[in-house]
Amino acid sequence: MERRQFLRGAALTGVGATTLAAPAIAQQRIDFTIVSTWPRDFPGLGTSAQRLAARLVELSNGEFNVQYFAAGERVGAFDSFDEVASGNAQAYIAADYYWKGKHPGFAYFTAVPFGLTYNEFNAWVHFGGGQALWDEVSGEFGLKALPAGNTGVQMGGWFNKEIESADDLKGLKMRIPGLGGDVMAKLGASPVSLPGSQIYENLVGGQIDATEWVGPYNDYFMKFYEAAKYYYYPGMHEPGACLCLGMNASFWSGLSDTHKAIITAACREENSLQMDETNANNGIYLKKMIEENGVQLREFNDDVYASFGEAAEEVFEETRGHSDLAARIDDSFKDARATIGGYLSIADIAYSNKRNAFLGL
Amino acid sequence: MERRQFLRGAALTGVGATTLAAPAIAQQRIDFTIVSTWPRDFPGLGTSAQRLAARLVELSNGEFNVQYFAAGERVGAFDSFDEVASGNAQAYIAADYYWKGKHPGFAYFTAVPFGLTYNEFNAWVHFGGGQALWDEVSGEFGLKALPAGNTGVQMGGWFNKEIESADDLKGLKMRIPGLGGDVMAKLGASPVSLPGSQIYENLVGGQIDATEWVGPYNDYFMKFYEAAKYYYYPGMHEPGACLCLGMNASFWSGLSDTHKAIITAACREENSLQMDETNANNGIYLKKMIEENGVQLREFNDDVYASFGEAAEEVFEETRGHSDLAARIDDSFKDARATIGGYLSIADIAYSNKRNAFLGL
Repeated sequence: MERRQFLRGAALTGVGATTLAAPAIAQQRIDFTIVSTWPRDFPGLGTSAQRLAARLVELSNGEFNVQYFAAGERVGAFDSFDEVASGNAQAYIAADYYWKGKHPGFAYFTAVPFGLTYNEFNAWVHFGGGQALWDEVSGEFGLKALPAGNTGVQMGGWFNKEIESADDLKGLKMRIPGLGGDVMAKLGASPVSLPGSQIYENLVGGQIDATEWVGPYNDYFMKFYEAAKYYYYPGMHEPGACLCLGMNASFWSGLSDTHKAIITAACREENSLQMDETNANNGIYLKKMIEENGVQLREFNDDVYASFGEAAEEVFEETRGHSDLAARIDDSFKDARATIGGYLSIADIAYSNKRNAFLGL
Repeated sequence: MERRQFLRGAALTGVGATTLAAPAIAQQRIDFTIVSTWPRDFPGLGTSAQRLAARLVELSNGEFNVQYFAAGERVGAFDSFDEVASGNAQAYIAADYYWKGKHPGFAYFTAVPFGLTYNEFNAWVHFGGGQALWDEVSGEFGLKALPAGNTGVQMGGWFNKEIESADDLKGLKMRIPGLGGDVMAKLGASPVSLPGSQIYENLVGGQIDATEWVGPYNDYFMKFYEAAKYYYYPGMHEPGACLCLGMNASFWSGLSDTHKAIITAACREENSLQMDETNANNGIYLKKMIEENGVQLREFNDDVYASFGEAAEEVFEETRGHSDLAARIDDSFKDARATIGGYLSIADIAYSNKRNAFLGL
């Protein structure tokens, strides 16, 4: 039974003929143009964004007239913020730390160095005050964002030499955006921002010495292993990068409760699905790259990690100085990290350590 | 704008007057009676189930005529399986390991000792073949289940003495259900199954010496600390207990694609929300119990954990013997544990260990 077969006939007032005639299945049509920061069909990121767009149509039974534009199809990736804030499009799918130049608070709602894992971030955003702060920073630009994907703890990156101390980072030209790049700069590296499509050629050509991207499932398709063999873990810079649906705030506030619920549920579903897909595939692709592409897996040692941690604290101090809101976001983030992260250290983390030691994982 | 204001008038065929007259807002009404295994308003578990029931109404704009019955309001908690399999109700909300007497394969879709964490379980079920196997075991009973909640890595339990070796478990009468109880039995303890409502009185009265339940947020309300002061971590028995919506298979297969999508999205949303709520609150309630109720936090040592691990392997061997399906589920579970769990050991786990060491968490 389709919902459309069982409609009341009483409430047609106000519906224009065009609206009714256009859709084959829907009762009303709400324009919902989405501009994405990912190339079309881009594995992991693009495919997740496209799945979310399709789900919005499915859950609304076609009432959302979703037009999805991949990066560059309507506007360039980094122009999607203005496209949505201005009302030209209803929503973007992006990593909100792309907008840290507009407000450094945005960085906390993707990922920050030494920040929150996927589980910690979701607990903070959904039940620890994170969403209200996110709404505040988005609200300053006429936006409303919801978590809609996550790529988990990233790998530390691809290097063409071993990193045995923080000194080995000095002078390194590395593609690493966001506050993670600021951490690297404090340690003497030269962080470079490059869109995904340009990293490979710069790494092969020697314009950069190192790069991070996401993790094995995403990185495999980038072929970085052709130019840099040392693949380091764990990444300190993005321990659970949240991707989001950022909507025009007027569009959002004009929706019915049902439509708001549909968008929220679809985003939360995709938030889990992208993480699950990534977690299900990372191990498979890491093994493949080690066995077939000569990738050398390396772990950052504790000294290097302590250097990252000290630099991250400095970066947070600078960020706090931006505004009262930035300081309040940093406070809330650090409270979540201590309370939620502290608890998980005796739960998921302690359990995994003990189980894995027994199983030899 | 509400969807109900924009309805077509053409497709009333087949809708009875009663169906149309009853709802104030919906176009059609689909009976969706849910019997839950949790008491009404039970913190964490009952409240999550009730939130899911309400969300099904909200997302369907009232088309799902959800009647939610807490444990005992329509049938007893453990009668909910038969109530749904028979078609008397459309769905239960439960932990599927309650039905391990019907098929031991069900245990794997809640939690097994030394099993999968929340992240690992979701990756397995959504992208690693888990759902297809779950469908197979549910299908043998005319059911279709979806993940719809999770309580994460449980605490090891409440003890009235310290556990310094596996010998200290011998003769202990402990409330611990499922395969975790089987592990305890192999180590010489006497596992007891008791519904949540009877644990406290048995612990205070001395009929049992120890109990596990969930974690600090859930356990706090049970007041176990009045009878047992030693609170152990990490639990080996339920490292990410999945709660589910188990539907009558005929009901499910008769639904439209839109309604299936709505149920699936609602379940996945709640699957995350319950975990997030638990993760956001566990640390707060643990601190409270330590500071206000004299709770002594203790960690199982590595020797005790190795004993748990060895006993768990024996339990899996017995489970595999039940049937070809049980063996295939065990195979798939162990592959997921090695591949997904192995990868996470260098991602979320390695990162958390290094970050927490630096921060002193």
